[in-house]
Amino acid sequence: MKKSASGTSTSATKTFGQSTARLEDRDLLCGKGRFVADIRLPGTLHAVFVRSPHAHAKIVSIDKSAALALPGVVAVLTCDDIRAAATIDRLIVALPDKTYKQQRDRYILAAGETVYVGEAIAMVVATDAYLAEDAAGLVEIEFKPLEAAFDCRIALEPDAPRVHSDAQSNLVAEFATAYGDVNAAFAGATHVFKDSYWMHRGCATSVECRGCIASQDDVDGKLTLWSSTQTPLVGARILAELLGREETSVRVVAPDVGGGFGPKLVFYPEEAAVAIAAVTLGRPVRWIEDRREHFISTTQERDQHWDAEIALNADGKILGVRGSLLHDHGAYTARGLTVPQGSVAALTLPYIVPAYHMAVKVVLTNKVPVTPVRGAGQPQGVFVMERLLDRAARELKIDRAEIRRRNLVPASAMPYKKDFVTRGGIPIVLDSGDYPACQADALERAGWSDFPKRQSEALAAGRYLGIGLANFVEATGRGPYEQVSVRITATGTIEVATGAAAMGQSTKTMLAQVVAEQLGGSMERVVVTTGDSGKVSMGFGGFNSRQTVMAGSSAHVAAVRVREKALLVASHLLEVDVEDLSIDDDHIAVKGAAGMKISLGQIAKTMAGSAGFVLPGNLSPGLDATENVVIDAMTYGNGSAVAEVEVDIKTATVKIINIAFIHDAGTIINPMVANGQIVGAIAHAIGNTLFEWMGYDDEGQPVTTTLADYLLVTVGDMPRLDIGHRESPTPLNPLGVKGIGESGVLPIPAAIVSAVEDALSPFGVRILQFPIRPKDLALMLEAAGVR
Amino acid sequence: MKKSASGTSTSATKTFGQSTARLEDRDLLCGKGRFVADIRLPGTLHAVFVRSPHAHAKIVSIDKSAALALPGVVAVLTCDDIRAAATIDRLIVALPDKTYKQQRDRYILAAGETVYVGEAIAMVVATDAYLAEDAAGLVEIEFKPLEAAFDCRIALEPDAPRVHSDAQSNLVAEFATAYGDVNAAFAGATHVFKDSYWMHRGCATSVECRGCIASQDDVDGKLTLWSSTQTPLVGARILAELLGREETSVRVVAPDVGGGFGPKLVFYPEEAAVAIAAVTLGRPVRWIEDRREHFISTTQERDQHWDAEIALNADGKILGVRGSLLHDHGAYTARGLTVPQGSVAALTLPYIVPAYHMAVKVVLTNKVPVTPVRGAGQPQGVFVMERLLDRAARELKIDRAEIRRRNLVPASAMPYKKDFVTRGGIPIVLDSGDYPACQADALERAGWSDFPKRQSEALAAGRYLGIGLANFVEATGRGPYEQVSVRITATGTIEVATGAAAMGQSTKTMLAQVVAEQLGGSMERVVVTTGDSGKVSMGFGGFNSRQTVMAGSSAHVAAVRVREKALLVASHLLEVDVEDLSIDDDHIAVKGAAGMKISLGQIAKTMAGSAGFVLPGNLSPGLDATENVVIDAMTYGNGSAVAEVEVDIKTATVKIINIAFIHDAGTIINPMVANGQIVGAIAHAIGNTLFEWMGYDDEGQPVTTTLADYLLVTVGDMPRLDIGHRESPTPLNPLGVKGIGESGVLPIPAAIVSAVEDALSPFGVRILQFPIRPKDLALMLEAAGVR
Repeated sequence: MKKSASGTSTSATKTFGQSTARLEDRDLLCGKGRFVADIRLPGTLHAVFVRSPHAHAKIVSIDKSAALALPGVVAVLTCDDIRAAATIDRLIVALPDKTYKQQRDRYILAAGETVYVGEAIAMVVATDAYLAEDAAGLVEIEFKPLEAAFDCRIALEPDAPRVHSDAQSNLVAEFATAYGDVNAAFAGATHVFKDSYWMHRGCATSVECRGCIASQDDVDGKLTLWSSTQTPLVGARILAELLGREETSVRVVAPDVGGGFGPKLVFYPEEAAVAIAAVTLGRPVRWIEDRREHFISTTQERDQHWDAEIALNADGKILGVRGSLLHDHGAYTARGLTVPQGSVAALTLPYIVPAYHMAVKVVLTNKVPVTPVRGAGQPQGVFVMERLLDRAARELKIDRAEIRRRNLVPASAMPYKKDFVTRGGIPIVLDSGDYPACQADALERAGWSDFPKRQSEALAAGRYLGIGLANFVEATGRGPYEQVSVRITATGTIEVATGAAAMGQSTKTMLAQVVAEQLGGSMERVVVTTGDSGKVSMGFGGFNSRQTVMAGSSAHVAAVRVREKALLVASHLLEVDVEDLSIDDDHIAVKGAAGMKISLGQIAKTMAGSAGFVLPGNLSPGLDATENVVIDAMTYGNGSAVAEVEVDIKTATVKIINIAFIHDAGTIINPMVANGQIVGAIAHAIGNTLFEWMGYDDEGQPVTTTLADYLLVTVGDMPRLDIGHRESPTPLNPLGVKGIGESGVLPIPAAIVSAVEDALSPFGVRILQFPIRPKDLALMLEAAGVR
Repeated sequence: MKKSASGTSTSATKTFGQSTARLEDRDLLCGKGRFVADIRLPGTLHAVFVRSPHAHAKIVSIDKSAALALPGVVAVLTCDDIRAAATIDRLIVALPDKTYKQQRDRYILAAGETVYVGEAIAMVVATDAYLAEDAAGLVEIEFKPLEAAFDCRIALEPDAPRVHSDAQSNLVAEFATAYGDVNAAFAGATHVFKDSYWMHRGCATSVECRGCIASQDDVDGKLTLWSSTQTPLVGARILAELLGREETSVRVVAPDVGGGFGPKLVFYPEEAAVAIAAVTLGRPVRWIEDRREHFISTTQERDQHWDAEIALNADGKILGVRGSLLHDHGAYTARGLTVPQGSVAALTLPYIVPAYHMAVKVVLTNKVPVTPVRGAGQPQGVFVMERLLDRAARELKIDRAEIRRRNLVPASAMPYKKDFVTRGGIPIVLDSGDYPACQADALERAGWSDFPKRQSEALAAGRYLGIGLANFVEATGRGPYEQVSVRITATGTIEVATGAAAMGQSTKTMLAQVVAEQLGGSMERVVVTTGDSGKVSMGFGGFNSRQTVMAGSSAHVAAVRVREKALLVASHLLEVDVEDLSIDDDHIAVKGAAGMKISLGQIAKTMAGSAGFVLPGNLSPGLDATENVVIDAMTYGNGSAVAEVEVDIKTATVKIINIAFIHDAGTIINPMVANGQIVGAIAHAIGNTLFEWMGYDDEGQPVTTTLADYLLVTVGDMPRLDIGHRESPTPLNPLGVKGIGESGVLPIPAAIVSAVEDALSPFGVRILQFPIRPKDLALMLEAAGVR
């Protein structure tokens, strides 16, 4: 790989670092995007799911007869019909996770018992979606309600109701992330501060809800499932195993996807049910999730309760951090323990923390299952650490920036090995970056040093300004690989195919830019297919800010190989040395002899070969390469955010005035796209911090199931943004890139809450939670005697 | 490659040399074969072609109105509708053939002029095949008949009618295959014998006629054409270029094919028309050729006229051969000059011929175009050489076997380089074999030395027995490569995909056997997909006895790579050295520790990887390999056939009593399959020699367009067969294999005709042609005064 990478460096940059227009834009802006709901297959049947109205109940009986009697209804399926293909969650991770005390797998359709409101119990298939909806109302299910557990703190009490009635306990897993002698650290500390924090449950709320359409092709014997998913290739593996088929007879395709943000990395019961119905009924079957369903059945995140304390020496240097985390996992153990593991791992990353012990309990509740949402638990860990540092700074009367500066891992220590490992057992090594410089840049941009003046002037005018700072380090680019193939066709088109999936992050543009960089510089010639298990044989998809790192690296190496081959072929055909050739646009030309050239298409056509003729230079045929660049170690991005806010104490609302954000994701391929990710993540995180609140009543009924009840950030809530990129290329991949898709969300809740607390410092309000809706702030202000 | 090959030799043979049951048999015997006509797609339209009734005519006008008025007729297409996608033949060979004086490309539908009876002029598409047939009769075409040229000898005369009215001449190409000083050889010869020979036109007559069905998938933007073709991958390239599409948006699949024999290697106008209609009309379109169409539009072979003379020294050693060949190419220059090139190249191969000069003229006639049929012209060259040797033997009073023995290339001379090259410029080097030993074996098996006794006894009883001998060497395994991918799936299935196409030669069994040899020995676990351009990106298909050589070699090397990878993974998982492991059936086990094992499926599943987990041994992911083994030089198979016949001079019929056939195709993978190829080819060649005769009247109207008029060999015509295999592995590929699919036809016409001449030697009848139908023999006997 090193050789290939160095091979690149000899040629001038053609596309890197340029904000080229996105390949995706033309279709999307012209209304030619193709999302799942746009896929029309002749004879399609429409599915609607009958969902549980109870948080916990025994299913006594299901009477389909009235629904089946409705003309146009083709089938009503329950767990009795598709019991053979039962559990699905455990298929995802091939290696067992020994951390589990119990694993609670979902059925495709609930069997005997339902454990959250919204769980799919029956599936109605009809010739028309409206008919199916009507028929769903006619499926009569007799329930016997059971006691339920909603609050993960209560759910652990010995006499708490069981989430699953046959369970001994609601505890799913219990583990600690720990290193060093934390007790000694605390025993020898000059200062110890302790607080309790909590984060409330929220959703990912993609613009496009879930949906899928399945069709069985009897000629090829292939089942195709188009799904609004982040992980079509993993989905194909799961579906094949579920159905007892070969992977190659199951194709899963992610067409255009209108946002993923984590929940769409799960392979859902609905996807399995739709696929099974299509096979069983011999006709295409389609299901498009509505917004209410999205709130009650798409996975969610974020109910966490932390107790955490920090030990420091007299200079404000951290000696240790310890505590415990109670994590609400929802009703099933869908998608492993990624979220709580991510939370406790992220906590210490930017700082030198000599000793650490965080005990974690993961608990089932009768609510929608919890799986990663953008950041996958890391914002929570960052929030706790940054809040602890703010507390220490205030108590020790050190500037909040200064206490961080004293504890940040310095650039001179890179690469810096942490004393614990990832869940896959891979050492955590901070690979590159200058964290103190990054913080300094952010402070400079935000006018940190002038702020006290602005603040006191405002206060004099009766206005409450505050500023807050947060640092983060994010584990990005999860391995082990993502397959990419690059092929030049006879027309000179450069076809790129990968299992990496696009859900709005400009994945196609990124891959086109990486490939064009090696192959003539013209992105218009590159056609990228993402997320189609029919096009590439292996891979994963989009999650964990991994696509540029993993797929980008494979694309780069594949493009370098194709380039080297093309040059070699051209050198034979043009009879000149490779060194005298250059690739420009769609051809290879002899340097300094513009007329002597050959098109890439002609080279491809030649290398397809003709029967009985020797290939040029006795080279192997083809002008393509498929690469699976394996990168096990994760690459760690970092950044610093400073938020300046004004709090209206009458309305208890927060107005964010400015966010300065200095980000380091290594090499930046396309600044516009990189900025877009940061801007989107900041907006996302502002919503998380100030508005989003997934509410349940005391019977476990979700009460925020419309976008009128569940508030999202709007453009009017956006502050001025001042975004800067440092570029500390990682040595771990040939492009030097790190992930950027999620990182923007990591520091924002901590920075905003710090700023709000700062604004309310005249009243001594302390904030230990997010979100902080006006309702929450009003209660805090009341408690402080302000209102 | 050598390393891989030697890697193989260390393990005991698991499947090679065994007559394992064919993978194809179960489906075919149970009626589950899927031929083109079995593919049913909803909404399919049916196409029927309106064909020319004239051998040569101007197309004055076409009136579609009556046809279009018939209810159910969807479209009537002519060249005006699909003119954009016009000529097709020149797309096949990327490199120009400088030998051509003119190239006459076919249009998809005849434009302005039609040049043979049967040429497609219009295409009727209707909802039902019967309706389409009726409507075809309503398409009114006004013709102005033009003078036509049918006999290639006359067609070259200056005032002959032109096959195409705008042409200067009917000469397509003129070239010579020559080496050595042939004039000096003849000048210095003790004996010179000269004769003229001719072979009449015949068909390939596969059981399944041509046919195709096309469907445009609007979701994937992919056009799929299922066609009864030998070369789906080449077809995909041509179709993509015709339609101005990317190859990856065109998929051509050969499902089960009921015989190819050469003509199905052509990409036909009908295939293009059906594909274009499917795209244009937005519905699947299907065309199934009927038997009459097969006789008047599927390509044919064999009208050749030779003048040839041989020079020998006093010992009967060949000094040189010279002469000329006039080759009837039919109405278009479809598929290059393969046939006449093959004829003149094959002529000298088995013998030491110090000087050679064969001048070739290729001529257009107003008949169905000529392209290769099984043997691709080589049987004609063999016929001429063997007849010359018979003539010389008789004149010199040397035994026919003895004169051959004196001239055959001896084993001690191997590898023996001929002094000319293939059409691709590749040196012709006879790579292995013991030709004299092969002939000796055949003579021994046939009882050659005892035959004079049998013959004279029979003659005494008024019965005319004869015996004949022919040797041949065949160029097989045309390169440059055929792609094969081998993949083990999570269930342990071994999936093999290739562009090699199966049309009855047990290609799937061959590939399964090659792969199973490396991967556990169980052929039941191997699933082979042949001839699907959607499964492999590059390749050619089935022709020129190349599939075992080219695809077999790629399959072998791919399987070796997968095996080495599987063993390496197992060694990490089981923590033992690779040397201590063995693959058996579906698993890898520790030698001598039966319990310590892991299944191939589990290894494949592990090597697909899990997000965040390191792959065993830091190996690259996947358990698959794709290979394009490049082999430029052809490998030369050989054999000797001895036919014993009885001629009934009253009915002028030939009864073949026995054929002894010793064949050398290098390593034999499956003796049953190899024998099947030889038996089939002998039957085929008996038909060619005694029955098949494509007749035209003096207006160019084909007169043998049913199987009642065009006679084929039947089981009652088959003699006792005594087939033996010598195995002289070629050093050119890792399996040591040579092609076997066509070779059986090469010596049979020469051997039978020699035997018949021998039987009729009392009457001095000389035979200089094939076929020799009863009608032909009767004329010869009359001319000899016998009848």
